[in-house]
Amino acid sequence: MKLSEFDLIHSFKKFQNLSPHVIKGIGDDAAVLELDKKCYQLLTTDMLVESVHFLKGHPARQVGHKALACNISDIAAMGGKPLVAVVSLGIPEDVTAAYIQSVYQGMHACAKKFGVSIVGGDTVKADKLVINVALLGEVEQKYLVTRDGAKPGDRIFVTGPLGGSLTSGRHLTFTPRIKEAQWLVENCKPSSMMDISDGLAGDLRHILKASNVGATIREADIPKNAGVTTAQALSDGEDFELLFTLSPLRAKKLGVSLKIKAFEIGTIIAAPKVLLIEDISGQIAPIKAKGYTHF
Amino acid sequence: MKLSEFDLIHSFKKFQNLSPHVIKGIGDDAAVLELDKKCYQLLTTDMLVESVHFLKGHPARQVGHKALACNISDIAAMGGKPLVAVVSLGIPEDVTAAYIQSVYQGMHACAKKFGVSIVGGDTVKADKLVINVALLGEVEQKYLVTRDGAKPGDRIFVTGPLGGSLTSGRHLTFTPRIKEAQWLVENCKPSSMMDISDGLAGDLRHILKASNVGATIREADIPKNAGVTTAQALSDGEDFELLFTLSPLRAKKLGVSLKIKAFEIGTIIAAPKVLLIEDISGQIAPIKAKGYTHF
Repeated sequence: MKLSEFDLIHSFKKFQNLSPHVIKGIGDDAAVLELDKKCYQLLTTDMLVESVHFLKGHPARQVGHKALACNISDIAAMGGKPLVAVVSLGIPEDVTAAYIQSVYQGMHACAKKFGVSIVGGDTVKADKLVINVALLGEVEQKYLVTRDGAKPGDRIFVTGPLGGSLTSGRHLTFTPRIKEAQWLVENCKPSSMMDISDGLAGDLRHILKASNVGATIREADIPKNAGVTTAQALSDGEDFELLFTLSPLRAKKLGVSLKIKAFEIGTIIAAPKVLLIEDISGQIAPIKAKGYTHF
Repeated sequence: MKLSEFDLIHSFKKFQNLSPHVIKGIGDDAAVLELDKKCYQLLTTDMLVESVHFLKGHPARQVGHKALACNISDIAAMGGKPLVAVVSLGIPEDVTAAYIQSVYQGMHACAKKFGVSIVGGDTVKADKLVINVALLGEVEQKYLVTRDGAKPGDRIFVTGPLGGSLTSGRHLTFTPRIKEAQWLVENCKPSSMMDISDGLAGDLRHILKASNVGATIREADIPKNAGVTTAQALSDGEDFELLFTLSPLRAKKLGVSLKIKAFEIGTIIAAPKVLLIEDISGQIAPIKAKGYTHF
């Protein structure tokens, strides 16, 4: 498989066959559907594969949690609330029923916490454990946030410290930022938002591309987990924090309210797709790599 | 993994945490949701795994067709129409981009034929090719058909010949019975319906269990594909024909109209979960196996 995931998703776009009720198809955290007058519906899916997204030795409950939580994070990133999920399990012969029960317990605990109903699924044989969750959510039309609304001058925020998620195990236990996203859309509507799954630099590029703008971020202001370098904070995946932009006025409002944890890390600029970083000494240089950073 | 799929799905039920908008959760062809006043929404998912549901040598377009078509078949079985799908692909390193493109072409052709929009998805690394489709559909509330409405005296029908789907390759090219299901719900509403994916005997048992009734089917009347024995017609999986029941009055209406292909194969009886077969010579005996038949 020579194509990168991004190229591949992009190539799928041409196979879209959108009906009038599809407001937004491939290319955001979730698809946006208009099947109701007041709310948009949001549909998203994520597949976790053993040895890629989790290891055989990882606690089953955490694996179950992650499988649902990463979908909830996608719904949060659109400003929505999760509603119902269907779960497919590909189960190898050497996996015990007790392990699968624990996966389900972890998923169920997460579902309960976020008001999700698990309403169906499929179980099949597989060589390695595969868990696919598809999640349907909804968002009041006025609260929908996509990736394409960032404007020059907007401030850039993240909801928590970045980096080291995979090595620390946080990728299995993270809390999807539903509460934060709800507060944001209700109180100071972001101009763009997404969740950080591929690393700050890579994901910010998605916003820049969708919004046709650029950005400067400040190394000193990027919140980092303990023991994490700036390079790791920029490129490590699976943080599942929210990345969002606010107009200067709304950024001020957020700063005053302090109702949610948020860190201002930079500013949107006009130059399309240009992504700059101001280092600790005040020097500004482009971040070159896609999804990675090489200083 | 010692539990059978059915036991496993059953065990998941206790993890359901149903909200008021969930009309029907785990245990039918699709979940039924009430998010709109006029229509119910239907949500279903199916996972296909290389070497289990298709082989490496199978044509990629057909594999793509099957991945979506088996979900459409689930929506048909509820009396609904498919709307939007999200697709997850687990892709091994040795699979070419051209193969994946062909999988998508097959899926897209099927989507176009049945009015489905593919609106998003996920692509991940995997050891073997895994394709998961989640499909959202809708059904007018008055047209919803579930598995639990079969009554003693109802006639049992299937929409086409059974057996040999896996050996003949039909499981990769079948036509989901949307047209037939739509005609049925609009003209002679079935008392129960499902699609045949685990074999006639096994799937009929699902209807019997859900409806708390029994059935007698007639060997002579079971439509069979060429070269298929009765045992195979009863137990082979992945036929994707509809299995449905009609009141005697409506069965007569169907017989007169002949607008869709349908074969009357037996009658619902009062005795719960009893499944009998009348052989060619007129002898009646129970079909013992679950999902298989052993004469």
